[in-house]
Amino acid sequence: MRLNDINNPKDLKRVPVGELKGIADELRDYIIDTLSTHPGHLASSLGVVELTVALHYVFNAPDDRIVWDVGHQAYAHKILTGRRERFSTIRTYGGLSGFPKRSESEYDAFGTGHSSTSISAALGMATASEMLGDTTRSHIAVIGDGALTGGEAFEALNNVGQSKANLLIILNDNGISIDKAVGGLNEYLTRITASRRYNKLKEQVWHKLDGSDGGRRHDRSIGLFQKLTSTAKTVAVGGSNLFESLGIRYFGPVDGYNIPQLVNMLQRLRELEGPKLLHVITTKGKGLRQAEENPVAYHSPGKYDIRTGNQINSTAEGTPLKYQEVFGRTIIELAEQNPAIVGITPAMATGCSLNLMMERMPERTFDVGIAEQHAVTFAAGLAAGGMVPFCNIYSTFAQRSYDQIIHDVALQGLQVVFCLDRAGLVGDDGPTHHGLFDLAALRPVPGLAICAPLDEHELRNMMYTAQLPDKGPVVIRYPRGCSEHADWQSPFEELEVGRGRCLRKGREETAFVTLGTVGNDALRVADEVDAAVYDMRWLKPLDTDLLDTIASKGYRRIVTVEDGVRKGGFGEAVMEYFAVHHPKVVATVRILAIPDEFVTHGPVAQLKHDCRIDADAIAAAVAD
Amino acid sequence: MRLNDINNPKDLKRVPVGELKGIADELRDYIIDTLSTHPGHLASSLGVVELTVALHYVFNAPDDRIVWDVGHQAYAHKILTGRRERFSTIRTYGGLSGFPKRSESEYDAFGTGHSSTSISAALGMATASEMLGDTTRSHIAVIGDGALTGGEAFEALNNVGQSKANLLIILNDNGISIDKAVGGLNEYLTRITASRRYNKLKEQVWHKLDGSDGGRRHDRSIGLFQKLTSTAKTVAVGGSNLFESLGIRYFGPVDGYNIPQLVNMLQRLRELEGPKLLHVITTKGKGLRQAEENPVAYHSPGKYDIRTGNQINSTAEGTPLKYQEVFGRTIIELAEQNPAIVGITPAMATGCSLNLMMERMPERTFDVGIAEQHAVTFAAGLAAGGMVPFCNIYSTFAQRSYDQIIHDVALQGLQVVFCLDRAGLVGDDGPTHHGLFDLAALRPVPGLAICAPLDEHELRNMMYTAQLPDKGPVVIRYPRGCSEHADWQSPFEELEVGRGRCLRKGREETAFVTLGTVGNDALRVADEVDAAVYDMRWLKPLDTDLLDTIASKGYRRIVTVEDGVRKGGFGEAVMEYFAVHHPKVVATVRILAIPDEFVTHGPVAQLKHDCRIDADAIAAAVAD
Repeated sequence: MRLNDINNPKDLKRVPVGELKGIADELRDYIIDTLSTHPGHLASSLGVVELTVALHYVFNAPDDRIVWDVGHQAYAHKILTGRRERFSTIRTYGGLSGFPKRSESEYDAFGTGHSSTSISAALGMATASEMLGDTTRSHIAVIGDGALTGGEAFEALNNVGQSKANLLIILNDNGISIDKAVGGLNEYLTRITASRRYNKLKEQVWHKLDGSDGGRRHDRSIGLFQKLTSTAKTVAVGGSNLFESLGIRYFGPVDGYNIPQLVNMLQRLRELEGPKLLHVITTKGKGLRQAEENPVAYHSPGKYDIRTGNQINSTAEGTPLKYQEVFGRTIIELAEQNPAIVGITPAMATGCSLNLMMERMPERTFDVGIAEQHAVTFAAGLAAGGMVPFCNIYSTFAQRSYDQIIHDVALQGLQVVFCLDRAGLVGDDGPTHHGLFDLAALRPVPGLAICAPLDEHELRNMMYTAQLPDKGPVVIRYPRGCSEHADWQSPFEELEVGRGRCLRKGREETAFVTLGTVGNDALRVADEVDAAVYDMRWLKPLDTDLLDTIASKGYRRIVTVEDGVRKGGFGEAVMEYFAVHHPKVVATVRILAIPDEFVTHGPVAQLKHDCRIDADAIAAAVAD
Repeated sequence: MRLNDINNPKDLKRVPVGELKGIADELRDYIIDTLSTHPGHLASSLGVVELTVALHYVFNAPDDRIVWDVGHQAYAHKILTGRRERFSTIRTYGGLSGFPKRSESEYDAFGTGHSSTSISAALGMATASEMLGDTTRSHIAVIGDGALTGGEAFEALNNVGQSKANLLIILNDNGISIDKAVGGLNEYLTRITASRRYNKLKEQVWHKLDGSDGGRRHDRSIGLFQKLTSTAKTVAVGGSNLFESLGIRYFGPVDGYNIPQLVNMLQRLRELEGPKLLHVITTKGKGLRQAEENPVAYHSPGKYDIRTGNQINSTAEGTPLKYQEVFGRTIIELAEQNPAIVGITPAMATGCSLNLMMERMPERTFDVGIAEQHAVTFAAGLAAGGMVPFCNIYSTFAQRSYDQIIHDVALQGLQVVFCLDRAGLVGDDGPTHHGLFDLAALRPVPGLAICAPLDEHELRNMMYTAQLPDKGPVVIRYPRGCSEHADWQSPFEELEVGRGRCLRKGREETAFVTLGTVGNDALRVADEVDAAVYDMRWLKPLDTDLLDTIASKGYRRIVTVEDGVRKGGFGEAVMEYFAVHHPKVVATVRILAIPDEFVTHGPVAQLKHDCRIDADAIAAAVAD
């Protein structure tokens, strides 16, 4: 049997255990091959190919429910569950999602994208099964050691311990979140795994277990197995086990690449009632040398040469820097001038380019792990202690720290600079990763100043301004990807908080009123239709003087443009101001913003077009 | 020396150790005495009187920074730090806040109110001190075992373990959050404490430590102490220690009422570098029999008889039920009809009245601990498994689960019913507890239906409607406290989602357009000025047919009223609709909503007046 014959997990079950390795090898090659030209999340998926094969071999999805935490490691799962032929459409417009998605397949038991939710979700489903008297169903949460540092995972573990639900947690321990995993938990897992005495005992355990009993139940050997693994781990870590402290039976660690062992283990665990955790050791990027050696770069490597494995650098000469690099270089410049500045990232050091500062000033940068809530309150504590923290969080992940932004920072008026990266439409990662809610969610929070740069020059000046004395909390949100060819090396200039500007005067007919990089689209259209362009710069405080000026000009059409949700967003803020202070102007206003729907994945230009916020839509709004 | 002589911690330090108990007794009496007529958070503060005395005796606040998690246990702290004479103003308008507040006192190192932030904040401050070379300062986080179940606390512990910061975590273990503490962590702490072998060893440890050395450093005895407590805990819990797994040195458990021992212990721990945790056993309500016996009822008991200790029931005959009780009784009725219904609360069973269902249907109710994120994803998992979960969260605490509401529920279209309790102004608990952001924050989330009942009759029908088949996710937000004397026992009626109603026709001059219970204020004013009243019921979907009707009536004044933030809220949604579809109406609209400032604590009526959303403000808006 070959991979091509496997159209669902039932087909897989007809493969003899001894031949599963061949299927896994094919799967891995298929992923490496496909992603070399159809970019996706490579390294995470490579790490769990064998685990995925073993899971689908032992369990009966979709009746048994497998929840993949974060979900970017679920490519092998997608291929084995009826999506092999469509796999090359992954993350393309209209194609497969890069994450599990309930509406895409019945095998995707729960949609993911953000980290640390799988145990809660699987516990919910397992509890539902229990209540419905459906005792045959298994529920599995596959969670990485990085995702386990997110607070919600711990909240869930605390509840799992007192539940009787039939839940199996697979701890996929590769020592990496997206950057290197951090924290006490990671060190603890390393200690368990590294113990020599443990490894010896483990061999004995496996020796006892490796019978020829295939998939049948052997109650006696389960008992033996429990006893031995229990001994093993006790010896391994000096008697300490965090999971058992919380009332969860712990098994492992086991090798994530020995399929017969994994199958044997999972078969036994399937028969054990109640919650349990299996610790599986994997290697991110497994099977592709470059990815194993550099799992951070190969997390989502773009295109690479299938023969050599080397990344194909798509950045041509003269391409402008990414906003991320502008952030990364600017914070270093500022930190060199202002010794109070520190940098914080919740596990996205490379993605947001704080890794540049981390290399130069390790003692002034903090990767706190996947822990957005802690990142924000920690920043607030640093600010209360006299520092000026720059807290860089992806816009969508900042939703995790909404409460902390309100209470720990804004309510106390502490000077924390939030750099919300990947704001707006992010493209291929889709609805869980677009940063569309930030403006509307933060606008009502008293005391926050909120701005969005037109280009990299502005980003630098906003960062400069935010760290000046007594600025209070400032939110700067900017998009993923290439900046605008603006001069970004000119000296810093302080911006007046709450002051916008006129970018282009134009005729008297039309004004574009914009926030952030969408202003560049407006500028292009304005050149064609000779419109005025106002870059408001600040959502909050809103430049009401400038709005008064705009209202006084008698434009026949005023078009607001933003790359955030319409409800409660920038355009609505402008409209509300006009409604109260210049009601006669209201009829001339058109708001271009993200409509009230979740936005799918695909190229940013396509999504902007669909959402009617691109240059075409701006031009059309002049005429409508 | 008497309590009256102590105006700050320096005064306290002049008391001989042996006399501290007398001070603590006085403090406790003073709290019991004052709160009997000036209601506040009683039981938590009574539990930590001795610990507070010991902390301020050993440490040098405000140079040393003490962060009180949640903060409702900080009354003794307030009294000892210059606020004794103003203590009877606690939680009154213009008086002391019921929580630590940086702007109130330099001794309040960090403002709290929501749970589980203290370790992150103290780690931030400790890290700042370390970076500034300020090695003399100590940083202390005092956190309850209930608060420790919140994910952010775990995120912080994971970071503490790898930090070298000078941080002391005091685990104030009373086995109670507000209701009984739940989960594997709680059971674990109980196991540590209950171990007999441990207790024997502990006595030996104390025996060795109880020298006459007072406050001086004894390096040798520190070493001995470490060794012995280390032995003790290893024996106590079969060798397992969760905190040490994370790299944090664990000490304890110790008796929270033996002041000399506490002082001795704290003096030694102060000299130990790096992060450490002291486990202190306390009793919530300590010193008042009724409060010890019923810490849930005496968490915030209202007035009580100072001689007997009995609560004075202020609910007169004929007083309408609280919204909370209406929720609690209604969910039972619904659950009796619909076997798919389950109830979830993050540690607020009594506060939200889910305890009623918990007594009747224990297997269908889940108190998940202080864990709002888990509560929501767990609910989503239950819904994916075929149940209809009612997830009751206080509006302000739902900010903790903003991301989960978006991704785990709304994006997947799962039928979870969010009952957001204590929405709007809550009164005495102040800015951390008002539920003012919910409407604006959730309105932009695609797929959510959001409603607010005018009265208890409507609340029942909204709950009934939300659990009918295929309703998707529904948010119902309602206030704290007494309902409106409406008939709440009539049969359930299905409401059309997104359909408002005209409550009162009135003359042609004025219309009040309201959402939620503020409609009752509008009705009262309408009787005076003969205005029309429209109860929109749903913020989302907004009843645009009804708005079209309102627009067509030619009112000279349209006043919108809501008890949420103005920016992005209900009034703005109405204004935006008019601006786009009926621009001529816009000039007649006045929005009454919470202005862009944090709202202090005080009586709800006073705060409504200050925020210009009360009946007077409604009447004034007609005339302006």
